[in-house]
Amino acid sequence: MTVLEKFKPIFYPKSVMVVGASKDPNKMGYYCVKSLKDAKFKGKIYPINPHAQKILGFKVYPSIKDLPENVDLAVIVIPAKAVPSTLEECAQKQVKGAVIISGGFKEIGREEGLKLQEETVNIANKYGIKIIGPNTFGVVNLHANLNASFTPIFSKLKKGNVALISQSGGMCHIISYHGMEEGIGFSKIVGVGNRCNVEFADLIEYFGEDPETKVIAMYIEGVDDARRMVETAKKVVRKKPIVAYKVGREGSGKAVYSHTGSLAGKHEIYKAAFKQAGIIMVDSCIELLDTVKALALQEPPNNGRFAVVSKEAGPAITMIDVCTDGGLTLAKFTDETNEKLKKLLPPFTIRTNPVDVAFASLNIEAYKEAVRLVLADENVDTLLFFCLYHPGIKLPVEDFAKAKNKFKKCMVSCVVAPKNMWIQVKRKMEQMGIPVFPSPERAAKTLVNLTFYGKIRKMVS
Amino acid sequence: MTVLEKFKPIFYPKSVMVVGASKDPNKMGYYCVKSLKDAKFKGKIYPINPHAQKILGFKVYPSIKDLPENVDLAVIVIPAKAVPSTLEECAQKQVKGAVIISGGFKEIGREEGLKLQEETVNIANKYGIKIIGPNTFGVVNLHANLNASFTPIFSKLKKGNVALISQSGGMCHIISYHGMEEGIGFSKIVGVGNRCNVEFADLIEYFGEDPETKVIAMYIEGVDDARRMVETAKKVVRKKPIVAYKVGREGSGKAVYSHTGSLAGKHEIYKAAFKQAGIIMVDSCIELLDTVKALALQEPPNNGRFAVVSKEAGPAITMIDVCTDGGLTLAKFTDETNEKLKKLLPPFTIRTNPVDVAFASLNIEAYKEAVRLVLADENVDTLLFFCLYHPGIKLPVEDFAKAKNKFKKCMVSCVVAPKNMWIQVKRKMEQMGIPVFPSPERAAKTLVNLTFYGKIRKMVS
Repeated sequence: MTVLEKFKPIFYPKSVMVVGASKDPNKMGYYCVKSLKDAKFKGKIYPINPHAQKILGFKVYPSIKDLPENVDLAVIVIPAKAVPSTLEECAQKQVKGAVIISGGFKEIGREEGLKLQEETVNIANKYGIKIIGPNTFGVVNLHANLNASFTPIFSKLKKGNVALISQSGGMCHIISYHGMEEGIGFSKIVGVGNRCNVEFADLIEYFGEDPETKVIAMYIEGVDDARRMVETAKKVVRKKPIVAYKVGREGSGKAVYSHTGSLAGKHEIYKAAFKQAGIIMVDSCIELLDTVKALALQEPPNNGRFAVVSKEAGPAITMIDVCTDGGLTLAKFTDETNEKLKKLLPPFTIRTNPVDVAFASLNIEAYKEAVRLVLADENVDTLLFFCLYHPGIKLPVEDFAKAKNKFKKCMVSCVVAPKNMWIQVKRKMEQMGIPVFPSPERAAKTLVNLTFYGKIRKMVS
Repeated sequence: MTVLEKFKPIFYPKSVMVVGASKDPNKMGYYCVKSLKDAKFKGKIYPINPHAQKILGFKVYPSIKDLPENVDLAVIVIPAKAVPSTLEECAQKQVKGAVIISGGFKEIGREEGLKLQEETVNIANKYGIKIIGPNTFGVVNLHANLNASFTPIFSKLKKGNVALISQSGGMCHIISYHGMEEGIGFSKIVGVGNRCNVEFADLIEYFGEDPETKVIAMYIEGVDDARRMVETAKKVVRKKPIVAYKVGREGSGKAVYSHTGSLAGKHEIYKAAFKQAGIIMVDSCIELLDTVKALALQEPPNNGRFAVVSKEAGPAITMIDVCTDGGLTLAKFTDETNEKLKKLLPPFTIRTNPVDVAFASLNIEAYKEAVRLVLADENVDTLLFFCLYHPGIKLPVEDFAKAKNKFKKCMVSCVVAPKNMWIQVKRKMEQMGIPVFPSPERAAKTLVNLTFYGKIRKMVS
């Protein structure tokens, strides 16, 4: 069985049951049914509850046994101690995937929870059931209208090509909500929770093959088998970028994992190993989003020689600082480019790299040509573009995009305007494959991350 | 003359002339008149232009000589070579402040520009004229309805207590536009440009005394007399926080200042000296804004022992990581607090520090009490608060603020909701003095900066 087939019951179920479905809007069992409904899931939805007839318009079944047919996926929101027996009943209905939202397993750090988790794993493995969780918010597949989570709002996420694997429900919600704001399109979102029999490595392998995924994003606190994860990632990064945000340093490790201590002190080693595997490491959830946005829009540069075209010197300096800190090199233009820029732009402008288009930005033809010349230069791998709102400027976005595509260059931009202004311009840039960020530092740091991945891919190809 | 009096003609002029005023919306001379008009400046506005009668409804004077009375402030937007003689004419009208927007001085790095700047300084000093610029976008004083800049939109900024000194027009616009979005209130904004006879040190001294300024923010590329700046800052930080974003590392120094090389390699030394002077150093324009926002809302903590109250574990871990990296210490609650939290919150919750209020956040009384207990703890200096949107939660903001004020604690929060949701809740929190940030890392880094300043102030008091 291929990895795509193995995960089919989780991501593309024909039917879903919700064990612990509820009519009470104060219970998670209510939101799980609502999520499936709001996402307009096309398959059958079977709420299970002995005390209800209808939930959100769906016929309710008193028990799993009473279901009229076999079911692919079970969403389980019942007390932990009832989970193993429920899983046995699920198996009788040929369930092959389970999203166990319930908490009270390994994470409580007591004999009782550990035992329950072990039991659950054993039953799942016996019947070949893939489990997401326990202790998770769920799973979302925007390409299948599947929202098997307790968060109905996830149904409103944009469909796209970024897969997100998160070890924390909270962080996953933060990332998704900000992603919504940034217009980032997701393929699938998985909250791995306690990782019963589906580890980061399994999902990396899956998303490596998933045709709907172009970029893999991860939020990680700890990995049980780091070696396996690293080995799997090493293979996948040849085809698709993996961006990871790893937390859990000594301070938080002590606080949160004081019962196991397994992470304490290992953080930097993890980070180094991940990076060596070719995983792009980021330092915040916002940087994670910025990086996946840029990677979803374009191919990374093959090398680190960057140029800056800016309407103002300050932001250019700021961007150069961040890029050179990140190991990139300010490109040295060819004599030809230098000559042409000198003719094109007025004196008193910085016409080398960075190129200060201040006086020329109101002259649309000069503006287009300056960007074209820089992109055409053989010594330039990427263009960092900065523009500040001015009522007189009509940004020639199509021409920029045309030049970028013609010369097969990477382009990352920062476009800043007063509140509620130039929103259409920014949207158009992203539609044409040029990511836009709200600050020069965020644009530049994203370019550093893209370049890291570009070098990895060059190395392995 | 006190420093407040010295700068009065710049920040509180009774009348302003615009030398180089224009009717043409493609010229900066047009926008300078528009800025003054849009800000509803209460004093007289005198556009000077030999070829126009009216500009934006104002009577135009053909030359400075023709003005009917003396004028306090001159905004100058004419070619550089005409500036010295214009300044002589200004002096005849008792002008005591000038905002020289024109470029073409020292920054062009040629004999010609250097000479012009020297000449300008000599004339200004001879007549006791304070100059902002040259090569600046201008000056804004929101408390005097004065927008002496080429950016009319600055008139829409919120009036408040943050003073901004910027060496780059571009960065100043980025900071101001984002500040607009964050609802940050500014007292005065100054683009120092080439710094003829008004240096960072002078403005720090001024804002140190300015009753309308509580926090001083700076964007710096290079300082001519760093020692003087540091000495001045050292005194001012006893009363008011100074937050600085210093750029210009070796890479950008080479590129942008290749004609002088004066900054190359000194960046880290500058940063260290500034920090030692008690200046809060930040790494991005967004961090600059975050930090000034928090400082404008509340007093900094006296010490670095922080507590975390969160509805989710992931964001709490993330915040602890950032804080411990920044040298802060996760507070150890007293036995009393531990006992009470244990009774208050259900088992399987983390009830030490961080406090995971997951299951209790829907119980408003327990939520209030958990926050109150943590704020009351004598081992806690600050509270980092995280809350993720949930349809069932009504955040008891007033009660949080009451407890914060009662126990005189600092509180920094991250509240995350899907697009366009909980905007009122976030606004209310800030109205009650609790800054809200969109990511756990930004909230935590702000707390690190606040704590740095709290320690500085404790040391000097």
